[in-house]
Amino acid sequence: MKTVSENRCFGGVQGVYTHASEATGCEMTFGLFLPPAAETGPVPLLWYLSGLTCTHENAMVKAGAQAHAARRGLALVFPDTSPRGEGVPDDEAYNLGQGAGFYVNATKPPWTSHFRMWDYIAEDLPRVLFNNFPLDEERQAMSGHSMGGHGALTLALHHPGRFASVSAFAPISHPSTSDWALKALHAYLGEDAEALARHDSTLLLRARGCEAPILVDQGTADPFLEALMPQALAAAMADRRQPGAFRMQAGYDHSYFFVATFMADHIAFHAEALGLS
Amino acid sequence: MKTVSENRCFGGVQGVYTHASEATGCEMTFGLFLPPAAETGPVPLLWYLSGLTCTHENAMVKAGAQAHAARRGLALVFPDTSPRGEGVPDDEAYNLGQGAGFYVNATKPPWTSHFRMWDYIAEDLPRVLFNNFPLDEERQAMSGHSMGGHGALTLALHHPGRFASVSAFAPISHPSTSDWALKALHAYLGEDAEALARHDSTLLLRARGCEAPILVDQGTADPFLEALMPQALAAAMADRRQPGAFRMQAGYDHSYFFVATFMADHIAFHAEALGLS
Repeated sequence: MKTVSENRCFGGVQGVYTHASEATGCEMTFGLFLPPAAETGPVPLLWYLSGLTCTHENAMVKAGAQAHAARRGLALVFPDTSPRGEGVPDDEAYNLGQGAGFYVNATKPPWTSHFRMWDYIAEDLPRVLFNNFPLDEERQAMSGHSMGGHGALTLALHHPGRFASVSAFAPISHPSTSDWALKALHAYLGEDAEALARHDSTLLLRARGCEAPILVDQGTADPFLEALMPQALAAAMADRRQPGAFRMQAGYDHSYFFVATFMADHIAFHAEALGLS
Repeated sequence: MKTVSENRCFGGVQGVYTHASEATGCEMTFGLFLPPAAETGPVPLLWYLSGLTCTHENAMVKAGAQAHAARRGLALVFPDTSPRGEGVPDDEAYNLGQGAGFYVNATKPPWTSHFRMWDYIAEDLPRVLFNNFPLDEERQAMSGHSMGGHGALTLALHHPGRFASVSAFAPISHPSTSDWALKALHAYLGEDAEALARHDSTLLLRARGCEAPILVDQGTADPFLEALMPQALAAAMADRRQPGAFRMQAGYDHSYFFVATFMADHIAFHAEALGLS
């Protein structure tokens, strides 16, 4: 692991680090915020998975999360959204290839060798984090935005017991029926319905429910509403009597101005589930 | 004036606009945040002048100011840092030319025709703002970061009565004796000591004092400490018995992680001076 930068921030440290990843077969970059409380012992960790075109940096500088995390004694990790670099396949479209890993393990060429973001987030990066930083592996929570909201929900649904809570800002909610999302998922996973269902939050929630409470915020002025399909997830949450909340936020779009506005609520939600004050 | 974008943000609107500026002889871009309170009547305005290499966008997306401004009913304006575009002179150095207007009216070629950021901030942009938005011209406050902290202080010192309060993050405090800052100031203003003194906060404060209270935050790990010369400003503030505070913040650097950390304090300071709750 290599330190790229460390900046003091709200009494803690906002770091950026790189490491060689076995899962993605390339060097990966992530941001990690450690709150002041990490100076005296391990702290709980909130994951934030970013959306299409983002790197580790976007949420780290735009979401305003550190202020709230510092106060609660919560660490924040900001992973990148895909493998990157020379030799890593790419596509001209913004929603396929680099910057668009979709949090799956690709099974179709040319993506198989590097596009294994599922394993990266579920196994590789946790190993790096818990081996190198004062983080409490027993107290984790999961969140994300857009494609990262999809990743947050599907990872939490497949790992019951790992995350105390899960939240999403404008998640891709039902990708197996959205042509826009299927572009990448077909490329990475093929057209096998079962493989696609394993990465569809709405179908997963309907099939198995979710122990952890779920908080979802969705703006009504989001230009991607038709592709995101929030109504499918909202209906599944209500049908399953899912603890948590699905909130429609009047007038908000898909930007980080939306994410920043509701970040305090999301961090309060996770802090409560993690037993923080 | 032309609307580039408007995003809902903390219950208000974060807008980006362009307009033709007489002062700079080119099209200028600015960000304006209107809090929810602006829906029912004119609100006070806090200026935020940015530093070297920044545009209108940096603080707008990184400083986390909107959360606090929304709650207090305060508007925020984020001007650009220089004229831009084809036909506008530039320099390869990051601290001269485009992105480095230094908030002066240049008197030396080739800068004279466009580099008039003093007039732009003091006259041109106020006209656009107060003619087009629900802003209370009688209730303004001024702030900035680095080169923008220099601009904030010098503009407030030259316009007694206009700003209820002035604050700066790591301002260029005593440029007339800093080789690093003189590079641009000599280019724009020549070597006339009187002209340079008119744009030196430390000298201005010593010469005329400041009615408005001043808040300055400076990180101890700032790599530009020698160029910024905060000690000169701190001494002038103490010698003049200047109401306000000069604070050294242990471990903080020059980044937006530093600015964001103390933004809540700055907005509380201005809100109090403006009579907001």
